[in-house]
Amino acid sequence: MIPSELDEGLPLEKIRDFSLEELLGMAIKAEIGAREFYTSLAERMEIQALKEKIEWLAEEEKKHEELLRRIYANMFPGEDVIFPEEHIGPELQPVARKLHSVEDIIDLIRWAMKAEEIAANFYAELENIMGTEDKRRLMRYLSDMERGHYYTLKAEYELLLDWAMYSQMMNLGP
Amino acid sequence: MIPSELDEGLPLEKIRDFSLEELLGMAIKAEIGAREFYTSLAERMEIQALKEKIEWLAEEEKKHEELLRRIYANMFPGEDVIFPEEHIGPELQPVARKLHSVEDIIDLIRWAMKAEEIAANFYAELENIMGTEDKRRLMRYLSDMERGHYYTLKAEYELLLDWAMYSQMMNLGP
Repeated sequence: MIPSELDEGLPLEKIRDFSLEELLGMAIKAEIGAREFYTSLAERMEIQALKEKIEWLAEEEKKHEELLRRIYANMFPGEDVIFPEEHIGPELQPVARKLHSVEDIIDLIRWAMKAEEIAANFYAELENIMGTEDKRRLMRYLSDMERGHYYTLKAEYELLLDWAMYSQMMNLGP
Repeated sequence: MIPSELDEGLPLEKIRDFSLEELLGMAIKAEIGAREFYTSLAERMEIQALKEKIEWLAEEEKKHEELLRRIYANMFPGEDVIFPEEHIGPELQPVARKLHSVEDIIDLIRWAMKAEEIAANFYAELENIMGTEDKRRLMRYLSDMERGHYYTLKAEYELLLDWAMYSQMMNLGP
């Protein structure tokens, strides 16, 4: 079930009410959610070119989760990851239903775009909070990566809006 | 040989001096150049994670070339592609030399970032020139994709600048 009005999650200005451990926990949770979302979406996707792109995004988010866990272990050695209830951006849920039309796909891509955009802004905010240059650099890395994902999705989204052309130009058989 | 001052190629304000056939020809030439550059760079890259990312970019540019050739064939049926001498952004040359240090890689990534950024702006300009909404949409698609590549490269670039951390966080070697 996709809400027509997207829940944007934790407002960015609230970030400073949380500890760094909590914020990193939220980030890890968001990366896991994004991966599960993309994996389930790819499984249901019949457009091969788009399926591959979504699978690629799922792998990327997996790498981000691993990177964040290393950062966490480095900053808080021996401590379990704290997962706050709050979430960054829309809470992406695994896609459990069959995709019936291109409109279903368009809705989900729009949802994912929103999540990527908010994640990029979230990491940019974390960059300001981090106390050392190496940690700031890592947050910049994650922010740029998510921004890259946003544009990748935006590209597909724009083209999907004209399905007749999409199928023609992407050489999708009738 | 990488120039320290990057040749930015055709200034965007000159775009309207060329025919659409010539501009599409330039775009196809740029995608071919970018693919050859990324392919040769990936072959010489010993950092596995980065090698995979660069290979992915090479595949992407290949798809863009194919898409542009389909657009060309659709707009100018039966006509050979015109390749003007002018080029969009820095003319990326295949990497023929061995990469000796991370600084060599950083230079090349910076070069590629510039090329991707200019390509994104070029396609955005082409969007304004195209006469029909479907063609405008295709240019928007290409512009967003190249913008995505720019951010993907920027992320790696930022992290490569702190090599000690990069190798630690990407779980490279001892």
